[in-house]
Amino acid sequence: MHISEIDTPALVLDLDIMEQNIAQMAAYCARARIALRPHIKTHKIPAIARRQIAAGAIGITAAKPSEAAIMADAGIRDILIAYPIVSDVKAQALAALLEQGVAVSVSIDSVEAAACLSAAAGRVHQAFSLLVEIDVGFGRCGVATPRDAVTLARIIESLPNVRFAGLMFYPGHMFVPRAEQDRLLADVNAKLYAAYDALTSASFQVPVVSGGSSPTALRSTEFHRLTEIRPGMYPLNDRNLVTGGFAQLSQCALTVLTTVVSTAVKGRAILDGGSKTFSSDRLLTGNGRGFGLLPGDPGTVFYNLSEEHGHLDITNSPVAYKVGDRLAIIPNHVCATINMHDSIHAVRQQVVEEIWQVAARGCVR
Amino acid sequence: MHISEIDTPALVLDLDIMEQNIAQMAAYCARARIALRPHIKTHKIPAIARRQIAAGAIGITAAKPSEAAIMADAGIRDILIAYPIVSDVKAQALAALLEQGVAVSVSIDSVEAAACLSAAAGRVHQAFSLLVEIDVGFGRCGVATPRDAVTLARIIESLPNVRFAGLMFYPGHMFVPRAEQDRLLADVNAKLYAAYDALTSASFQVPVVSGGSSPTALRSTEFHRLTEIRPGMYPLNDRNLVTGGFAQLSQCALTVLTTVVSTAVKGRAILDGGSKTFSSDRLLTGNGRGFGLLPGDPGTVFYNLSEEHGHLDITNSPVAYKVGDRLAIIPNHVCATINMHDSIHAVRQQVVEEIWQVAARGCVR
Repeated sequence: MHISEIDTPALVLDLDIMEQNIAQMAAYCARARIALRPHIKTHKIPAIARRQIAAGAIGITAAKPSEAAIMADAGIRDILIAYPIVSDVKAQALAALLEQGVAVSVSIDSVEAAACLSAAAGRVHQAFSLLVEIDVGFGRCGVATPRDAVTLARIIESLPNVRFAGLMFYPGHMFVPRAEQDRLLADVNAKLYAAYDALTSASFQVPVVSGGSSPTALRSTEFHRLTEIRPGMYPLNDRNLVTGGFAQLSQCALTVLTTVVSTAVKGRAILDGGSKTFSSDRLLTGNGRGFGLLPGDPGTVFYNLSEEHGHLDITNSPVAYKVGDRLAIIPNHVCATINMHDSIHAVRQQVVEEIWQVAARGCVR
Repeated sequence: MHISEIDTPALVLDLDIMEQNIAQMAAYCARARIALRPHIKTHKIPAIARRQIAAGAIGITAAKPSEAAIMADAGIRDILIAYPIVSDVKAQALAALLEQGVAVSVSIDSVEAAACLSAAAGRVHQAFSLLVEIDVGFGRCGVATPRDAVTLARIIESLPNVRFAGLMFYPGHMFVPRAEQDRLLADVNAKLYAAYDALTSASFQVPVVSGGSSPTALRSTEFHRLTEIRPGMYPLNDRNLVTGGFAQLSQCALTVLTTVVSTAVKGRAILDGGSKTFSSDRLLTGNGRGFGLLPGDPGTVFYNLSEEHGHLDITNSPVAYKVGDRLAIIPNHVCATINMHDSIHAVRQQVVEEIWQVAARGCVR
């Protein structure tokens, strides 16, 4: 099937671009001697995860046990749950993966998490590796002080069927311009150094320091004692990363293919995709405006979303849009956009090679 | 199953509240002698659509042919597509519903739409009823002038297998406080009057004037010659409607059940649902801030969303949140929230009566 035959709105993934992105990040990590454990929340597609591992990733990261189960079913054998697991039902779902021979690690920041994971692993006579999450400034999850990190590591070591494996952090506040990143980096490193030092002073081994985010992935060597990173977006990229200066337009592998369905209102072209196609995630970089990038037409502003309509202001565009025109748009946030869809068209040179189900879409639990 | 046994995050729908909401809107429409054709985009669940029809709705409204097909499969026989259909593949999908005996009407604003619907209906020897959409000030879809409405009605009448059935409008710009609505109403009515007058002066019958939106539904008698309304949210309601003064908190039937998964950062409680659970739709009313309402704790601010984390600022809350606490939250925008989920727990008196699949979730085409 040629791309022109795809019914819209639809997600179109350029395989050539994605494969190049996957190879580039794998090469960077190999050179940097940092393990790559991509977060699959971005794509939720086993076929892409397998390509990431084939290129050198040591395993994957997931947020929810239901996502992890789908990836394990697809043959992935090393999974970090970078999410606090605090309920028996979820701990047991992860213990079922241990029983299948999957290496499962979890990052935690509470006694409750350590206890429920210990109990669940005990029931299947296996063990979870646990990373202690520290807050490096994002203010979401993670223990606040080196002393708290040591306390939680001690609790882990006192419990059966769990072992302390190191530190985890997420520098979510570093999705900012590079100069501002520079200022934040020193503080993050001070926090990493203090936690690492406190743990080793208390005689803990810290084999893993797991960090990284999409906008800091290519600066990984600048983080203190980092051993692995968990970027998610690098295979696909999006408008946020391009506008923030973290990816090139030519590295954006995913577009939303849309059709103009109305031009009746003067100065407007209305697309057949809105918030239920793109997600309503705002632009986190640049001026924060707009819901997608039209690569060929910088004069048009994608200024509003209804649920099923995309609102383009074409007042300053040289293009005379008409009903039936098809536009490929780069979404603000690729992770959120893919999660709206059941399938993706994987395309090479304008021809659809495969249609992939977004197998872990909607895995909120 | 008791509500306390539901794994989180999960959508919980209170059947008593929903049934009361459905009965109230049906009673209002019966008193007002205005037909009720609810938009099913809000819930996407056949079981709810059937209850709306049982209470007196004449049929349903849908945006996409794939949604309509699911509702037709569930036995619904009268469907308005309130969306411009401009491609052969979608027109043919709707023609397949005509063949199944479903009465299908479509609102359009272009010659292209009229032509492709005419062709598709011709192939199955049936006819679509077409409404001409007019723009009453939202600036999304709809012809701009009474003259354009007459021109499009004439084109429809000149084509085989389509018949002109009246006018359609969507006052999307009226999701504003009531005093502002009052000011906009006069302008909307002037536009409705002008279009109606131009059509009748040109000897057209205008049997249907289809309007309405959730925040104007209970003012339907104030719109000029309105014959039917298409509100979507009234069975469930949400924070937008409550904050805007269009629904009471006690009329909100849908909550997102969440669990506190981290309290490690001072002043924060982190929930196990983020933008992939709530959607990232902003509040359109009030101060525009926050991603959900905690009915029991106005001191807490739901100030940020990650994809799988909800960030609560509990600095000014009297509640000492701890890991494992379960919170029921009213989402900003119920239509967007339901669309993130595969299923809903329908609950009465804290007991789960049914688990409904969100059958038309993700029907973007």
